[in-house]
Amino acid sequence: MKKEENHYKYMQMALELAAKAEGRTSPNPMVGAVIVKNGKVIGQGLHEAVDRPHGEIAAMNSVKNKRLLKGASLYVNLEPCAHYGRTSPCTKEIIGAGIKEVYAAMIDPNPKNNGKGIAELKKAGINVNVGIMGTHALKMNEAFSKFITTKKPFVIMKTATSLDGKIATKTGQSKWISSEESRNYVHRLRNKVDAVIVGINTVLNDNPRLTSRIVNGRNPVKVILDSTLRIPLNARIFNEGDVLIATTPRYNRKKKVALERKGVGVIVVKKKTKKVDLKELMNELALRGITHTMIEGGSEVNASAIKAGIIDKMICFISPKLIGGEGAKSAIGGSGIKCMEDAMSLRDVSIKQLGPDIVMEGYF
Amino acid sequence: MKKEENHYKYMQMALELAAKAEGRTSPNPMVGAVIVKNGKVIGQGLHEAVDRPHGEIAAMNSVKNKRLLKGASLYVNLEPCAHYGRTSPCTKEIIGAGIKEVYAAMIDPNPKNNGKGIAELKKAGINVNVGIMGTHALKMNEAFSKFITTKKPFVIMKTATSLDGKIATKTGQSKWISSEESRNYVHRLRNKVDAVIVGINTVLNDNPRLTSRIVNGRNPVKVILDSTLRIPLNARIFNEGDVLIATTPRYNRKKKVALERKGVGVIVVKKKTKKVDLKELMNELALRGITHTMIEGGSEVNASAIKAGIIDKMICFISPKLIGGEGAKSAIGGSGIKCMEDAMSLRDVSIKQLGPDIVMEGYF
Repeated sequence: MKKEENHYKYMQMALELAAKAEGRTSPNPMVGAVIVKNGKVIGQGLHEAVDRPHGEIAAMNSVKNKRLLKGASLYVNLEPCAHYGRTSPCTKEIIGAGIKEVYAAMIDPNPKNNGKGIAELKKAGINVNVGIMGTHALKMNEAFSKFITTKKPFVIMKTATSLDGKIATKTGQSKWISSEESRNYVHRLRNKVDAVIVGINTVLNDNPRLTSRIVNGRNPVKVILDSTLRIPLNARIFNEGDVLIATTPRYNRKKKVALERKGVGVIVVKKKTKKVDLKELMNELALRGITHTMIEGGSEVNASAIKAGIIDKMICFISPKLIGGEGAKSAIGGSGIKCMEDAMSLRDVSIKQLGPDIVMEGYF
Repeated sequence: MKKEENHYKYMQMALELAAKAEGRTSPNPMVGAVIVKNGKVIGQGLHEAVDRPHGEIAAMNSVKNKRLLKGASLYVNLEPCAHYGRTSPCTKEIIGAGIKEVYAAMIDPNPKNNGKGIAELKKAGINVNVGIMGTHALKMNEAFSKFITTKKPFVIMKTATSLDGKIATKTGQSKWISSEESRNYVHRLRNKVDAVIVGINTVLNDNPRLTSRIVNGRNPVKVILDSTLRIPLNARIFNEGDVLIATTPRYNRKKKVALERKGVGVIVVKKKTKKVDLKELMNELALRGITHTMIEGGSEVNASAIKAGIIDKMICFISPKLIGGEGAKSAIGGSGIKCMEDAMSLRDVSIKQLGPDIVMEGYF
């Protein structure tokens, strides 16, 4: 089994390389590649950002003596592309370089490629193997996969509650329900997504920054749901990074001008509903290149998002604290279900401990 | 380290023996004992029930040839007793039998003993070691430890919520939020405690059985908080096992007679409050030999119990389901806290996955 083990080792390396660009490649996938010859890694690379070379090319570029590529094995977490996009097809370069074997963790879900890359490599006589560490690879690019197949952003709903399910005390206090470790994890999540979404009440009550406070962190675009444009022009979210305000045709005209003069984008979601229609907003965000978002809403925004059916994944921080109170808000407000059979259940649930808190993640 | 390892092995055996009597020894502790000679287990025993011999005696009794006990080592999860209780002191028997070494996992918290047993064994020239697997031993007899030192029952608060903290839908449905695995775990917990406590509304709404539906399970006493005696005489809780109704001086006199005629105990908690005063009730239960209880309450009972400061441990089942709704009850109602600094935080939190659910346990 020695040889098999090495396959996992090299694919693991490729996945780790890919992950280095977390939050930088959207709307492209994260891709890492490792080139091995005679049991030795001779090259490695990753897709660093949307305008940079693909991972396979970066790995091949890292090999100074191009003749070494002849007969080498390439490990990559995603099927190489066979189509012209921002760059020319990777398959062409791989074939041209004389690579002998390609190990891809998963098929490219991009309908433009989706097996074509594999077919092309095989046609050129390259030995192709698909599926090593496939589950890891799928999870890493889950947002890309959804976006490329549906043209809608992948949406995470994040909640932070006490053990009794409250997101704030009855007076609205929520600082801090979750631990420092959990808050740091949220900052890492913000570095990963293209945008975070909150309701105007969160801005008015908590005046949050919604930034990614980690080393070399990248701030997501901040999207505020604000049906009439009540947002104060001096809100802290304007201090750093981009802000988009999503509103309805009921918006305040003077405020819209003031915001746009400040350089803040205002999206008027045309659908005539009292609140911003979230399904429609997702299409608007997709048009703006946002493929991966996280809703950090209150009770009402969360309930609306679930009702709109836009959530893909939930990440719930549960702190071992007790808040209590009939009047204290819990994570999901709205009208709720009547019968237990109507309860939605998350799939593929995983849990981990984060300081004193636990994090439960699962999919819709 | 071979010898050390054996100490753990034998103590583990003693603990496992002790645990076999879970729910049967109250108000006594669970005690298991193993006797080893020349690296061989020659005897073992446990305290099977309150009127049966102590674990050490049971282990010694299991050795047919009493001369073998001379020079043997005894492993026991609790300090042997040096006082006269229902039985004569174990120390006397241990010394008399010629046991050479005693390994006790923990000191007996019982103020009547509490180190006296150890001292007596040492005085008789026996080599005594205390502390091997002490944490396990403490946890196993946590209810006994509280009761024997405070004369108040150890109280577990059990909750079962959806991921968004709800204990029922807005229409009151709660069957079933948690999974079958979780419900089985609750039955095992019921087998362990002396009594379970619910509010009258739970009886009126759900008509539960509150039994321990496991093989050889022992049903706990069912304690119903019923300030005016609204309980129907045909409630399912009367079908099997003992029931105690805790009420206030506002009780319905006719119903009290009817209940007592049925053989149901009615405790009139004298303290004049609108609801049954839970602190006072704990004293009443202690007088009735109840050392270990579990509250399986709704929102209001849970809030009252926390307010009364009677809870020792929380066991929270969290299901990956979503219920939502402003009007759906969450685990702890009442008035709740105002400031986050006032939030109570559980200590020594542990989590485990139970089917699709997670269970979070922690101490107050």
